[in-house]
Parts: sequence; structure tokens; C-alpha cells
Amino acid sequence: VKLQVFFTPAEVASAELSGRVVLVLDVLRATSTIVEALASGARRVLPVATVDEAAILAQKLDRSTTLLCGERNCRLIEGFDLGNSPAEFTPARVRGKSLIMSTTNGTVALLAASAAPRVIVASFLNFSAVVEAVVQDGSDCTILCSGRDRRFAMEDAVCAGMFAQRLRERLGGTIRRNDGAAAAMSMAGRYGKSLERMFRGSAAGRHIVEAGLADDLAFCAELDRHTVVPELKDREVSA
Amino acid sequence: VKLQVFFTPAEVASAELSGRVVLVLDVLRATSTIVEALASGARRVLPVATVDEAAILAQKLDRSTTLLCGERNCRLIEGFDLGNSPAEFTPARVRGKSLIMSTTNGTVALLAASAAPRVIVASFLNFSAVVEAVVQDGSDCTILCSGRDRRFAMEDAVCAGMFAQRLRERLGGTIRRNDGAAAAMSMAGRYGKSLERMFRGSAAGRHIVEAGLADDLAFCAELDRHTVVPELKDREVSA
Repeated sequence: VKLQVFFTPAEVASAELSGRVVLVLDVLRATSTIVEALASGARRVLPVATVDEAAILAQKLDRSTTLLCGERNCRLIEGFDLGNSPAEFTPARVRGKSLIMSTTNGTVALLAASAAPRVIVASFLNFSAVVEAVVQDGSDCTILCSGRDRRFAMEDAVCAGMFAQRLRERLGGTIRRNDGAAAAMSMAGRYGKSLERMFRGSAAGRHIVEAGLADDLAFCAELDRHTVVPELKDREVSA
Repeated sequence: VKLQVFFTPAEVASAELSGRVVLVLDVLRATSTIVEALASGARRVLPVATVDEAAILAQKLDRSTTLLCGERNCRLIEGFDLGNSPAEFTPARVRGKSLIMSTTNGTVALLAASAAPRVIVASFLNFSAVVEAVVQDGSDCTILCSGRDRRFAMEDAVCAGMFAQRLRERLGGTIRRNDGAAAAMSMAGRYGKSLERMFRGSAAGRHIVEAGLADDLAFCAELDRHTVVPELKDREVSA
């Protein structure tokens, strides 16, 4: 089995995704929020790149069962129903709803991955369930980090490295890694023992703390809170 | 002092390079070769992106003092004088010459860095001399890895991390790191003890070995072989 890690969406080439299962990570916070939302019973998440696209799509859907969600610069977008803090996505708010979600980095990565036959939304919250889904699948695996503003982000790299480590354990000694996978595994060894502390040292984590959303860090650091394995199909993410 | 590491040229934004000293790395092999060439007395290196540009530029220069150098897929380019193995760049061949150089990854990174007021060509071969130049300069520092085919490359990341470690030691406790710098330093801790072994495990290193150029790996792993600090100015690299 081949195992690739890419640290930014720019590194991935759509043509190379055929036959692969792709894990998309935006640990702080988009993929953690999507996992939480679907575990809370949301019907589906519709990722869009821009606020304008979100508004256009909302007009086509039943407003009573649709929520607009997302952030710019960590903040709720004006006129939107929910931000990008996973704790907001409670069953009371999201059960049965379609969530249109525009986030800075995560959406870009989901769209970059969409050429693959199977795209899984991954985070620490659904870590072990995603590992088992990849093991069952048996395909070569690409782990795509969203990064931050098209740049390397520590929290996604450490999560990617922990997935790579666990997949190597589960799959035995037959793994072929790219340079990114080897690097991510070494970062997971260095920073994976205390996820919340790692978050606090990262640029994204500091930005979230400065925005007054420090509780999000503990939330996104919780391993295996859920067993949901959301997948992207036809521009919709559902469980 | 702020210290940034970027793993691919796509991560760097020209507008953010003002006031910075930028170290460009393509350890396997372009920046190692440039350092070797200038230490061997080459007058200057003219990096170009394509083979066509190399041919056009060669027509404008005195052919008797100009050498065409570079590689595609590790191999000498047809009609060129030299490849991209540093050992080829001996004083007998290059002293006083202008070298037009087209390489796959290093040239892209040099051009991406060129908006900065100071761009230094760095490698393991001139490691300590580059560190002292940055310390003397006193500016914020960006370390730009060329990567490989627009992707993360282990050998550049480890070299970047070793530069970051040494700069932190030399500059004292006042360093502000981006996520890339923290990650690179952890990789240097893991992989910096045996550079040639790290090279052999990297995708670029394996490719060079497969091309029959394994001796290049030991050559490029030699710390502080030279004290030359080449700089890029007006699209020319000179010592």
C-alpha cells in the first residue's frame, strides 16, 4: 500500500488521485466541525468556496431546513446562522438540516480532493473510525492537509502523521511512504503526545485563542469522540 | 527576529519578502552545485527556467566563456556542457566562466525569492558561512525550500531545520518561528545526524541513485566544504 501526505492543496495533482482513498484534514477547524455536525444528525454539508456561492446556493434550497455556516478570519460571517466552532453544531440546531459551509482553508482542500473515487473527511474526533475505513478499503491512501492560507500548518501535519503511523501499524510492513508521510510521522512523534498543547503552539491555534475561541482547541483535540466517517460525493458531505 | 520556513515556492508571497534575507535551498542538487561552481571560481551563474531560455540567453553571450548547465530528470540536457552534479564543476572547467543553469526545481525557487532585498544560495556545503552572513545581516529570515515538482522534499526540509536550529543558537532566545520552522527543526532533530542516510531515504535521493549518480549524495552531504556565500542580484548569482 502506498501512503502519501501532502501539506497543502497545491501539492496534490488531480490526475494522480485515481484509485485512491483521500483523507482531507482541516483540524482547526473545518473538518472537526463537519464531523461534529454529521454526528449531531445534520443531513449533509455542502462546502462552498465563497460567501457569494453560499448565498446563491441557499436561495435554491428550502430555507427552513438550511443553515449557513462558516467563518472568515475565525469570525461568524454576517447574515450566517452558525460559525465554525464545532460546539455550536448541536443536535438541537442541526439535526436533519442541510449545512452550507464556507471556510477559508478546508473547502479548498475538499474541492482539490474531489477527483478521487473516495474522499473522507477526517479529524481527531473520528480518528479510529477513519483508520478502520481506510484499512477496510485497501486502496492506496493520500492524506491531504488543508494548511493555512496555502501554507504548511502544524496541526494538520501532526494529525496526518498520526494517521500514517496508525495505518502503518494496522497494515503491517508493506507501506511505501512519500517524503511528506515520513516527515509527518516524525512530527507526530514529536508533537502528538499533547494535542491541545501542540494546537496552542500553532499559528492557527494562536489565532483562535486571540479570537476568544480557546475552548475550540480542547474540543478539536478529543480523540475518537465519534465513529462517523463522512464522505464527499457530488459536492455533498454526508455520513 | 522572525524566522520562517516554507517547504515549497508556492507558499511564499513576494509581497511578504520586503526587508527579509531569503535562503534558497535545493540541496539535491541545484544550490549545492551553484555553491561548488562559485567556489571553483565561476564568474557567475544565470538561472533560467527552461531549456529554450537557456539557448536564447547563450546566443547573447560570448560562447567561449559561457557554459550551459543543468538537468532534466537527473540527466544532462542534449547540447549542454555540464549536468547538475557538483563534482563536474571543477576549477579547470568553470573558472572565470558564466554558467547558464536550468534545473527543474531550484530555478523556480530562486525566481520566487527574487523580490527579497537579499537572496542567498544555501546548502550544506556552505552551511556555517551562510549562518554567519544571516547573523551579521540581522534581518528577519525566510528559508525557502525548492521541494520537488512543487511538493515537499525531505532533504530541503531537514537542511532548513538545521539552519533554523543554528540561527536560534546564534541569535539567542528572541526567535519567532512560523509553523514551518517549528516542523523543520523537529525533522532536523530526527534526520540531521546522518545526512547521507537521510538523502538515501528521500525521493530525490533515490531518483539520483537510480540515475547512477550515487556519488552526488556524499558530495552534497559535506558540511562546510566552502565558505562562499553566493547571492542572487538582477537574475545573476555571484559570490
